[in-house]
Amino acid sequence: MANSFGELFRITTWGESHGGGVGVVVDGCPPRLPLTEKDIQPDLDRRRPGQSRIVTPRKESDTVRILSGTFEGKTLGTPIAMWVPNEDARPDAYSEMATKFRPSHADYTYFAKYGIRAWPGGGRSSARETIGRVAAGAIAKQLLRTLHGVEVLAYVKQVQRITAQVDGERVKLKDVESNIVRCPDPAAAQRMIRLIEKVRRQGDTVGGIVEGIVRGAPAGWGEPVFDRLEADLAKAMLSLPASKGFQIGSGFGGILLTGRQHNDPMRMRRGKVITTQNLSGGVQGGISNGQTIYFQVAFKPVATVMHEQDTVDEQLRNTTLKGRGRHDPCVLPRAVPMVEAMTALVLIDHALRHKAQCG
Amino acid sequence: MANSFGELFRITTWGESHGGGVGVVVDGCPPRLPLTEKDIQPDLDRRRPGQSRIVTPRKESDTVRILSGTFEGKTLGTPIAMWVPNEDARPDAYSEMATKFRPSHADYTYFAKYGIRAWPGGGRSSARETIGRVAAGAIAKQLLRTLHGVEVLAYVKQVQRITAQVDGERVKLKDVESNIVRCPDPAAAQRMIRLIEKVRRQGDTVGGIVEGIVRGAPAGWGEPVFDRLEADLAKAMLSLPASKGFQIGSGFGGILLTGRQHNDPMRMRRGKVITTQNLSGGVQGGISNGQTIYFQVAFKPVATVMHEQDTVDEQLRNTTLKGRGRHDPCVLPRAVPMVEAMTALVLIDHALRHKAQCG
Amino acid sequence: MANSFGELFRITTWGESHGGGVGVVVDGCPPRLPLTEKDIQPDLDRRRPGQSRIVTPRKESDTVRILSGTFEGKTLGTPIAMWVPNEDARPDAYSEMATKFRPSHADYTYFAKYGIRAWPGGGRSSARETIGRVAAGAIAKQLLRTLHGVEVLAYVKQVQRITAQVDGERVKLKDVESNIVRCPDPAAAQRMIRLIEKVRRQGDTVGGIVEGIVRGAPAGWGEPVFDRLEADLAKAMLSLPASKGFQIGSGFGGILLTGRQHNDPMRMRRGKVITTQNLSGGVQGGISNGQTIYFQVAFKPVATVMHEQDTVDEQLRNTTLKGRGRHDPCVLPRAVPMVEAMTALVLIDHALRHKAQCG
Amino acid sequence: MANSFGELFRITTWGESHGGGVGVVVDGCPPRLPLTEKDIQPDLDRRRPGQSRIVTPRKESDTVRILSGTFEGKTLGTPIAMWVPNEDARPDAYSEMATKFRPSHADYTYFAKYGIRAWPGGGRSSARETIGRVAAGAIAKQLLRTLHGVEVLAYVKQVQRITAQVDGERVKLKDVESNIVRCPDPAAAQRMIRLIEKVRRQGDTVGGIVEGIVRGAPAGWGEPVFDRLEADLAKAMLSLPASKGFQIGSGFGGILLTGRQHNDPMRMRRGKVITTQNLSGGVQGGISNGQTIYFQVAFKPVATVMHEQDTVDEQLRNTTLKGRGRHDPCVLPRAVPMVEAMTALVLIDHALRHKAQCG
Repeated sequence: MANSFGELFRITTWGESHGGGVGVVVDGCPPRLPLTEKDIQPDLDRRRPGQSRIVTPRKESDTVRILSGTFEGKTLGTPIAMWVPNEDARPDAYSEMATKFRPSHADYTYFAKYGIRAWPGGGRSSARETIGRVAAGAIAKQLLRTLHGVEVLAYVKQVQRITAQVDGERVKLKDVESNIVRCPDPAAAQRMIRLIEKVRRQGDTVGGIVEGIVRGAPAGWGEPVFDRLEADLAKAMLSLPASKGFQIGSGFGGILLTGRQHNDPMRMRRGKVITTQNLSGGVQGGISNGQTIYFQVAFKPVATVMHEQDTVDEQLRNTTLKGRGRHDPCVLPRAVPMVEAMTALVLIDHALRHKAQCG
Repeated sequence: MANSFGELFRITTWGESHGGGVGVVVDGCPPRLPLTEKDIQPDLDRRRPGQSRIVTPRKESDTVRILSGTFEGKTLGTPIAMWVPNEDARPDAYSEMATKFRPSHADYTYFAKYGIRAWPGGGRSSARETIGRVAAGAIAKQLLRTLHGVEVLAYVKQVQRITAQVDGERVKLKDVESNIVRCPDPAAAQRMIRLIEKVRRQGDTVGGIVEGIVRGAPAGWGEPVFDRLEADLAKAMLSLPASKGFQIGSGFGGILLTGRQHNDPMRMRRGKVITTQNLSGGVQGGISNGQTIYFQVAFKPVATVMHEQDTVDEQLRNTTLKGRGRHDPCVLPRAVPMVEAMTALVLIDHALRHKAQCG
Repeated sequence: MANSFGELFRITTWGESHGGGVGVVVDGCPPRLPLTEKDIQPDLDRRRPGQSRIVTPRKESDTVRILSGTFEGKTLGTPIAMWVPNEDARPDAYSEMATKFRPSHADYTYFAKYGIRAWPGGGRSSARETIGRVAAGAIAKQLLRTLHGVEVLAYVKQVQRITAQVDGERVKLKDVESNIVRCPDPAAAQRMIRLIEKVRRQGDTVGGIVEGIVRGAPAGWGEPVFDRLEADLAKAMLSLPASKGFQIGSGFGGILLTGRQHNDPMRMRRGKVITTQNLSGGVQGGISNGQTIYFQVAFKPVATVMHEQDTVDEQLRNTTLKGRGRHDPCVLPRAVPMVEAMTALVLIDHALRHKAQCG
Repeated sequence: MANSFGELFRITTWGESHGGGVGVVVDGCPPRLPLTEKDIQPDLDRRRPGQSRIVTPRKESDTVRILSGTFEGKTLGTPIAMWVPNEDARPDAYSEMATKFRPSHADYTYFAKYGIRAWPGGGRSSARETIGRVAAGAIAKQLLRTLHGVEVLAYVKQVQRITAQVDGERVKLKDVESNIVRCPDPAAAQRMIRLIEKVRRQGDTVGGIVEGIVRGAPAGWGEPVFDRLEADLAKAMLSLPASKGFQIGSGFGGILLTGRQHNDPMRMRRGKVITTQNLSGGVQGGISNGQTIYFQVAFKPVATVMHEQDTVDEQLRNTTLKGRGRHDPCVLPRAVPMVEAMTALVLIDHALRHKAQCG
């Protein structure tokens, strides 16, 4: 269904920007995993608005509550329901949105589809929906780490034209968290922050690339032919708000090489099959090959800008609309935990599927 | 499941490169659609090996037989089973593959996953699997055209560094089919063909980009939050053999723009909502907005090359492997019908889902 | 997944007997349906413990709150999350259950499966879980009535050996609700109530049959071959706690007839195809035929009795266990809204599926 | 989807009574299981028409061919496609069916649903569809036996009023196969056979009960709350042609007992938890408890009788219809392998699901 993701580790998110809150139900989590709100909240804090001067200033504490699925601090194997109430409920801040469609937002398409829309804050199309994903992803990351020794990490690789140098084999979470833009290349990070502040002052926005990596995944995860690991990752990433592209391994750049150059030679190293380069990105034929999985996700610049733009209203008349108050100049720092979450959800799902058929 | 695709128009493909053949079961097709093998075979002929001097020379007629689901030339609403027997069964041509893993193929990963593999021709990981997709896609295209007036088309946009100029709003199937590389820009097509012939003579291979377009889709198709139209397209494309990237609308290039530049202004034109540019690629918030949908898929160079390469064998010993006989220098001309098929499968599925909930 | 039900109108329930509450997420509800808590609460009140002297006396108001999916009193087409907090949290009342498995309950099987169990009140296996079903079923019933003119109803048909006479074509909700046992045959109802009170005084329990009917369903709903209407109804009913059997139309009794007797002759009446008897129960070949659908569900006597019984404990030692305090002598009155809910969920799901493929 | 069954061991059947044949695709089968047609054919022979004088005389050899998913006699982990061509293609034998709906068949309901129907032999609603199930079930039985030591068996328990005495804990396949009615009680079997022959001579038909048992299943299989083992079994059985009821354990008879009588006391025996009676039928709270699982399925008398009956035709006019030629007096002997197959499919699916989450 539209609001569920995963086959065996399945999440269902719910909630609009305004109203009773947002949440998620996680079905299929293995039992006896230690789990409390303390394991979830840190990733929600990384996703939270207002965390720094370069992200959206909406005031929300985003405090999660686990309503079911655990007992005495451990998972039961039953559905884990998590809820984050909405706090910053100021629909009047959006009153013009009640009648006008914001360009390159989902206002018009939701209205065209459903004939009704929750206009405050964009309703269901708000990035608040990703709270449920990040909360569920925190569980998935814990399972991957605990049960499989697999590490999932993401970071900002590029903001507009500023590109970071990152060694995906070695970068650590603390490197990512060492600055507010979540780019582990300190020099690039400072330039990115300055750029984002500048476009914010101009009432404009900027996009870029988040890179995701998975280290320690064994060879054998992934379900050809349709549920290839890279196919499910691509779907996961393109389901995130504002994402416009996905590439794994050599990606679009790989088309400049010939087959001889592009093929990853295989060798034995310490009794393990490795490849001496990794243009495949850790996946061959839809199945992990034991090398580091890495991929990139393109996020467009945020659509809300502080400038008047042409649009139409619900009565289908031409009009204009201009953003008000403070805006979100760049989604990338907050997209990092979202990419990690979706990556972990794909990986744990495939780990369970692999175990079921081939374990 | 791994070998099924789609929620309401669901296909299940089966078959290995060698053995009893390949096929597909299509479940959920609306009843009373005129359908015979004549509606399917043309797309299979576009996918067929040996169709021109720039594709793989394997000898297969790929003749499809409809085994169920139709009666007196019309669909029954019951599962449509289609079967294409394998003809070019020469496992000895691949005998070295019985013990050695081809680099950047799926030989090793299938073995790591399943502990067994059908080595002749790559077994299930062979591109022959896509026969079922193309056959099912032909039905989907017919439904889209007949029931919804929607047209799906794909073409080669780029081969290595040679890029074509194509007007996605106007290009026609006959333009695509006017040359063997399936690029509707005649000048670029000639250069592409020459390049492919050159790399073939060098025993090497080359990749590129296929662009897919959907014209005439109404506003309202797509199922947020996870089954966004672009998310399902991304999954569909990354499930194709040799694909490494997907981008929709502005894609990776869009990150160079600011929000002001990137937003698509909305206007009324002849009573219809349109956008005066289309960097969104016809999709906003996961739902079609009535503009032309367009996207690009990166295909890596084919992995089989006529040069010796480092690899390992089933006994996990270092060895080398070199391709033999004639090889496939470029997957792109045959990827075009595959991209069309997967696009049509996504679109018809979403059309049915939209009808169910909002129709 | 285990905690989801339905293909297009899909519900996911969550929650244990004790803890943060129980709830449901409804995905796929058509947009623009008027919906507030007032439409849900009445069915929850029919399911509520403590509603009469012949049901479980646990103290719960079971007040529902809609957290998402509606705006200004109408459905949005987005997931509808509903939550009922737990109130009667007295785990100490169950302390013996912390170490002993109640016979013919799910205590042992949950422990055997998950290696952990939320022992207070039976955790996830508690009938409290059905709150989410009943809440979702209330929406389904409203959709069936509003969009399709279809009526779903259930009532107690039999308690132990006391059988009611009910005309399924004419019985009304107010007849069902006219007494606390929910049996529309007043004379039988009084005898049933007396029996239930008697077994309650004896510290014992009693089972029986709930009959469900669907009036006004058009010919054509149901999805052969696996998702036949009767198959999905059977699954729905056997997924209810304490149910042990399902029969549709003539059911087990029909095996006493020959084919000549059992076949339902067809006739035209006022331009409509009808059958002159209805042993099929309104379904033929898995598809509704336009006649009234009727079926029966057997519920075993409730397992908690006020008598000492042999059992084992978590350390796998023989022991005995005796229920304490007041118990639930008969699940049937509260099973009636559960059967209605599950019936409505099956029917609306099939209505949407039929519309998608054949509409 | 309508024509698929199972979550992790998923089958998709296809095919009509007449036309290219019937078949099945099995997705999710574990790799490296020895499998050839020889493992499948025996169960198809038990399902085959014409196998004895008390079943339908249609001439079909029902020879299966495995088209994919195996290599050198072992499963690959890829989809297993199996195909049985139709042989007895005499649509003229059914010519009256081209315009008239057979009472209590699915002719009318298919027409009402799809607006088209393959009238020869009932098309998709023919019991020939179950060939795919039986073929897939043979694989499932082999997996259960090989990987889990679990045995699945079914037999005829009752024909009209003739009931057999069978000890479900001890009955063996050879007892079932010792007579043509597949009833392991020899005395009852002879009376059943005589009854069936008598009704056949009368041009009439008769129904009854098939009992299914599962021995050796461990405690812990089953997925509450919706995919309870008994719920999935109920769906499986009610998806079989001509089935009208399902009961597990005490079933409808259990409602005559009180809770004290009905509860299954638990004891330790040789270090294992057992129950000293088994009215639960081996399942508690949707999860197997390690005892023998047993259930019953009611099959109505076959609808085709050699007597004139009231019906209507495609032009919606009253008419009459009478069966011709030889008919099938009793579906039960052939239903036995169908019940086994569906039981095995449910069990292996739950075994894999249990392994994925809790293994």
